[in-house]
Amino acid sequence: MSADLDARLQELVQLARDGRTTAFIERAWELEPADLGDVLAALDEDERVALVRLLPAELSSQALIEMPEDAHAEETLAALDPGMAADIVEELEDDDAADILGELEPEQQERILAEVEDRRDVDRLLRYDEETAGGLMTTRLVTVTDLDTVALALEAVRRQAEDVEDVTEIFVVDTSRRLVGALSFKQLVVSPTGRLVRDVMDDADVRVDPDVDQEEVARIMARYNVPSVPVVDAGGRLIGRVTYDDVIDVAEAEATEDLLRFGGVSPDEGLAAGWGEAVRSRLPWLYVNLLTAFLAAAVVFFFKGSIERIAVLAVWMPIIAGMGGNAGTQALAVTVRRLSLGQVPSARVGQVITKELLVGAVNGAAIGIAVAGVAVLLGESWRLGMVVFLAMTLNLFVAGLAGSFVPVLLERAGIDPAVASSIFVTTFTDVCGFGLLLGLATAVLL
Amino acid sequence: MSADLDARLQELVQLARDGRTTAFIERAWELEPADLGDVLAALDEDERVALVRLLPAELSSQALIEMPEDAHAEETLAALDPGMAADIVEELEDDDAADILGELEPEQQERILAEVEDRRDVDRLLRYDEETAGGLMTTRLVTVTDLDTVALALEAVRRQAEDVEDVTEIFVVDTSRRLVGALSFKQLVVSPTGRLVRDVMDDADVRVDPDVDQEEVARIMARYNVPSVPVVDAGGRLIGRVTYDDVIDVAEAEATEDLLRFGGVSPDEGLAAGWGEAVRSRLPWLYVNLLTAFLAAAVVFFFKGSIERIAVLAVWMPIIAGMGGNAGTQALAVTVRRLSLGQVPSARVGQVITKELLVGAVNGAAIGIAVAGVAVLLGESWRLGMVVFLAMTLNLFVAGLAGSFVPVLLERAGIDPAVASSIFVTTFTDVCGFGLLLGLATAVLL
Repeated sequence: MSADLDARLQELVQLARDGRTTAFIERAWELEPADLGDVLAALDEDERVALVRLLPAELSSQALIEMPEDAHAEETLAALDPGMAADIVEELEDDDAADILGELEPEQQERILAEVEDRRDVDRLLRYDEETAGGLMTTRLVTVTDLDTVALALEAVRRQAEDVEDVTEIFVVDTSRRLVGALSFKQLVVSPTGRLVRDVMDDADVRVDPDVDQEEVARIMARYNVPSVPVVDAGGRLIGRVTYDDVIDVAEAEATEDLLRFGGVSPDEGLAAGWGEAVRSRLPWLYVNLLTAFLAAAVVFFFKGSIERIAVLAVWMPIIAGMGGNAGTQALAVTVRRLSLGQVPSARVGQVITKELLVGAVNGAAIGIAVAGVAVLLGESWRLGMVVFLAMTLNLFVAGLAGSFVPVLLERAGIDPAVASSIFVTTFTDVCGFGLLLGLATAVLL
Repeated sequence: MSADLDARLQELVQLARDGRTTAFIERAWELEPADLGDVLAALDEDERVALVRLLPAELSSQALIEMPEDAHAEETLAALDPGMAADIVEELEDDDAADILGELEPEQQERILAEVEDRRDVDRLLRYDEETAGGLMTTRLVTVTDLDTVALALEAVRRQAEDVEDVTEIFVVDTSRRLVGALSFKQLVVSPTGRLVRDVMDDADVRVDPDVDQEEVARIMARYNVPSVPVVDAGGRLIGRVTYDDVIDVAEAEATEDLLRFGGVSPDEGLAAGWGEAVRSRLPWLYVNLLTAFLAAAVVFFFKGSIERIAVLAVWMPIIAGMGGNAGTQALAVTVRRLSLGQVPSARVGQVITKELLVGAVNGAAIGIAVAGVAVLLGESWRLGMVVFLAMTLNLFVAGLAGSFVPVLLERAGIDPAVASSIFVTTFTDVCGFGLLLGLATAVLL
């Protein structure tokens, strides 16, 4: 955000705090909804509720829906009288209304929806999982039939477009409302008005059903470069569309989730969570990690006698285990991202794992030689050098196996590989690293 | 991709391999460009070049530009006669042409561009960094002037739209081509034809200059829900637009890069790289890690005498250091993602770090108590329990500091925090973890 914009938003926050509502509203009309959303988010919950009570629903609705997710606009909505909340909901597009109401408890939802004049579309959307095409779609769209002329279609668009906020393209249906094509605005405007829609439309092969996961929807839109994807029911009837702006948000949100999960943080934490929430979110994961750390420590304990006799083994422990962890994380990052982009069909699983095994073995040998060389240069015996070399090579081989096999296995089991993979992989490389080093040392040196 | 589509694409690959070009072309026209791109990508380079020689440029151009990036369509283009390559380039939108030509060496570029009829737009686009708004934008767009009537604007659109593949909206300029507004298709169609454009247009405050980074462009489009962002020069004159489809691709590509970098893999590797390329990409990073592993090992070496006397300390080493690494990675994932989304203005840096310090201290104490309890239950002395508790608490505090401070520092220094942070953070937590455990043990137990 530019410093200039930031300053303007700060002024508005101040106007709101000073209770200068008329001046606030006057300025607020000039802002983009996302900017006004930031202003609302900067206020305390009480200030925000007080302000929203005084704003026209047309203004507050857009600002609430654009507030950052962790500012919880739904709580502000729930704090209003049901009638006032309903006025705001009525101003929203149906998909936005379903999004914000979906965050509320059923009884709060119902209290507000009871006051909404025409709640049918929102009710229908609320039934879908919010992370699917059905949860993202709006039912508001412009349709024409395939046997219309272009002139009639233009007329239909003029009639329907008033109710549709963002017309991305026009969908063509047959008399049973089955989707048969799509018409861009360009085609509509440049086509001779006397021609039939069916003769100038594109096909509409790119379509999804409402249960398709939002990541898949994003992938389809990126792949086929379409401004919106029509959503059809089992009978091929058009029931909604997902638009480009939802999908950009999805791509960003999924990227955040993947990175957080990869780092062992629950995506529910939210990037701007306070320290208390962060502790509650992260501590359980650390306890799980602690269990696996004890597993690795147990391996060391098993070889305590060897360490008593050759204490320098403890110096090599973090090197062997740490490098295994690093190499495993590399393999993991590549594999998790490939899985997340749908690039690993069953037929190619073997190929993916074989590649990582090879990479692990080669890198292991390369790093192993370096480490063994340093050991000998530092005055250790060539036998210890050999132990270190073997332990490193084998541990990086294991790292390649774990880094590719574990996420594939988790995905096949229906578990998000980004969540749980890293813990298994580093446990593997720690346990194997300590076991290989201390086991080989015990066999060769004692 | 559905199994059905996959089978259809396999058939086309077979037709190409069998040299049944006529049948191939017939079917190819029915495919979406991205699907045809996958068919080309499935062929060997030789087969692909032979096939593209026989395809109409209208077909091959779209397929080449939609090929997955790691299939290197530019190499196919470079293998053709310059004249034939130029025919393909002429079929492309100027931004797509610049993208594919931008991957070639300057002399290869020039050889092809010399044969292109009107190369001015492509030449201009090639001058921008490919990861900026200038590198993403197309110069093809539809403009009207603010003093036109809606009827005249409709006429202008009809005239201009033929040359613009994907008309997302109409830009309004003044007589000096300075951007003054934007007009959605909806507004154009529903507005009375006699009104002036300036009276029905939206403002065009959302705009970028050509040097803005592509991630920032994606963020702006997601924030303001616009199908395209106009790109203006220093004088406010309209020079191009970035469209939604480019931005979805950017969001996916940036997510891949962030995750790979976080895992210590160069994004240049490409997700589908072979094992040789993967070794070359990852080994240097492992060597860097090895240096830091030696640093941690040096700390252990420093306390070798203590380990000789109390070998069980080696059992607690991986627990203290490993938990520090886990907690540091959590703090890192949250901070890196916040930085990547532009959520950490300078004024809030202190707040971000304070939060992570608090989280680290609280989690450290919680984990420390558990670990010390286990130690005492396993028959260790209460003094060792206290050492373990203190080392764990302090190390997780350090982890919180490193996990937030390091990425912030790197970003301020102009280094991508996703690349280099994790290595510093785990080095910190290893060195401090070993130092704290062994140092405290030496002081308290010996």
